[in-house]
Amino acid sequence: MLPELKDLNSFRDALLRAPGPDQDAVNGAADRNGQLTKPPGALGRLEDLAIWYAGWRGDARPQISAPQVIVFAGNHGVTAQGVSAFPPEVTVQMVMNFEHGGAAINQLAKSAGATMDVHALELDRPTADFTAGPAMSEAEVLAALRTGWDAVDATADLLVVGEMGIGNTTPAAAIACALFGGDAADWTGRGTGVDDAGLANKTRVVAEGVALHGGTGDGIEILRRLGGREIAAMAGAIAAARVLRIPVILDGFICSSAAACLADIADGALDHSVAGHQSAEGAHGAVLAKLGKRPLLNLGLRLGEGSGGALAINILKSAVACHSGMATFAEAGVSDG
Amino acid sequence: MLPELKDLNSFRDALLRAPGPDQDAVNGAADRNGQLTKPPGALGRLEDLAIWYAGWRGDARPQISAPQVIVFAGNHGVTAQGVSAFPPEVTVQMVMNFEHGGAAINQLAKSAGATMDVHALELDRPTADFTAGPAMSEAEVLAALRTGWDAVDATADLLVVGEMGIGNTTPAAAIACALFGGDAADWTGRGTGVDDAGLANKTRVVAEGVALHGGTGDGIEILRRLGGREIAAMAGAIAAARVLRIPVILDGFICSSAAACLADIADGALDHSVAGHQSAEGAHGAVLAKLGKRPLLNLGLRLGEGSGGALAINILKSAVACHSGMATFAEAGVSDG
Repeated sequence: MLPELKDLNSFRDALLRAPGPDQDAVNGAADRNGQLTKPPGALGRLEDLAIWYAGWRGDARPQISAPQVIVFAGNHGVTAQGVSAFPPEVTVQMVMNFEHGGAAINQLAKSAGATMDVHALELDRPTADFTAGPAMSEAEVLAALRTGWDAVDATADLLVVGEMGIGNTTPAAAIACALFGGDAADWTGRGTGVDDAGLANKTRVVAEGVALHGGTGDGIEILRRLGGREIAAMAGAIAAARVLRIPVILDGFICSSAAACLADIADGALDHSVAGHQSAEGAHGAVLAKLGKRPLLNLGLRLGEGSGGALAINILKSAVACHSGMATFAEAGVSDG
Repeated sequence: MLPELKDLNSFRDALLRAPGPDQDAVNGAADRNGQLTKPPGALGRLEDLAIWYAGWRGDARPQISAPQVIVFAGNHGVTAQGVSAFPPEVTVQMVMNFEHGGAAINQLAKSAGATMDVHALELDRPTADFTAGPAMSEAEVLAALRTGWDAVDATADLLVVGEMGIGNTTPAAAIACALFGGDAADWTGRGTGVDDAGLANKTRVVAEGVALHGGTGDGIEILRRLGGREIAAMAGAIAAARVLRIPVILDGFICSSAAACLADIADGALDHSVAGHQSAEGAHGAVLAKLGKRPLLNLGLRLGEGSGGALAINILKSAVACHSGMATFAEAGVSDG
């Protein structure tokens, strides 16, 4: 059961106290994997994925039948600094597109057999420009975390969280820079497609934000000061899934920055997560390396919305289908070498 | 319509005369892609895949609804040289496993919504040991090519071909070495898992085969002398799909060696094909590089059976689903930057 989020400390506590995987299920799945009709290791990462999934579900021979995709949308005061190639009204327009089934994530969720929910977070009230002060108050970040926390279906057996928020590669870069160090330029990319001058401006904005807010607190405080509502909601949902032992497939750069805030709070906060893909957004590979996550896919996506995570659902489903559906050498009467 | 294969030259001719993609459909798909509700290029390789698929199907807004997976099985005289970690009777045992639904490829085909057919090619009559003479006569290789040629369902809209044949990484390595040059060691890997001594022995066998048969003819002659019945059947099926304009997702090392024989016959013989994955079998990456194919997945699989190709079906389906299902900026009322 999910505890109620009374305040930011109860969020931190829930993450610190979340249960790990079921070791009996891990052992049972590893044992079964060794008996399946294939040469040892011949299914590569699919074997590791299936055993990992089994542990989190507490079932040595699991199924994936109820994946959930949740898309969170938010607006960002920092867009006033000209950090995006698209105008901020596109956020609400794309939320309509999600609701009418016309976006990429709608097609990808459907292809993966996943349900899809959309949560728009106070789009008419953008976060504050973080170059002038914190993006959110404590009450605001708590509300956004709660939106994500409460959005997770406790009966789901797999979760992908995505986002829409014009300008949100800028807060994502600022979060990564604040958490992992280095220069703003190391973490700042072209997002939906800014030109060289736009990239220089965006890098300046990230640098100013990190200069103002960096080193002021843990991952949740960084999330509050440099993040956005949809980024906090993603963090809330990933954390809820951790508590509920629902495996998560991480999406791209923004999702990974949200996840990084959780990893800063608790070792193992992301043990229930795999990286669905490596985005073409410049610094995503570096964020994944910091998180110790190797992406499943690398197909040049840089869309957000949960697209890369959703695209990887069928990989995980296939891994689990092999694990749970294949015959053993004994069952099939096949000589095992 | 597929012409009848009267002889090996009619096979060569069919490949040389096969139609290319529909340029109107390519142009229509590229135009549509530019109007979809996403930043330009944000779906990365999914965009290229959808446009490529549209061209081969002659439909600017295509669907994938009937993928076919075909697994061919054959036995190899060269196993007498101790080239495999598994005994040759495993080939027929695994065919039974395929027929009973217990193998990895059964689960993967099902996860991809694909039909699956299995063709066992004279398992009680292994090919000749290619270190002593040609693996097959002209009549034998023609019969095997025909099995593949005739196995393709003309109503399928996507094809994956896989194989089972204890010992068959050895002929696949010999074919690659004969076609692409270099040393036997460059192309010889551990297959299902031979040890260092086994690898040295296998490399010797490949070198002997290439010394005896290399430089004696084109890809079909190399296939006859160094290949196997299931490898020839894969080549036959890939060629039939080319003639029928059915897109193909190539599987791993053995499938790619079969495909390489076709590429040796006709430029563009593999234009209807994408590489589903890069296998962990040592030389697969090098074969793909020679074929100019960039793999969609790289997850450490080295099973064969069509497993990597089948795993990639859902990637292609997702690409086409995005392309054909997404709203345009105009339809969705979204500002396009």
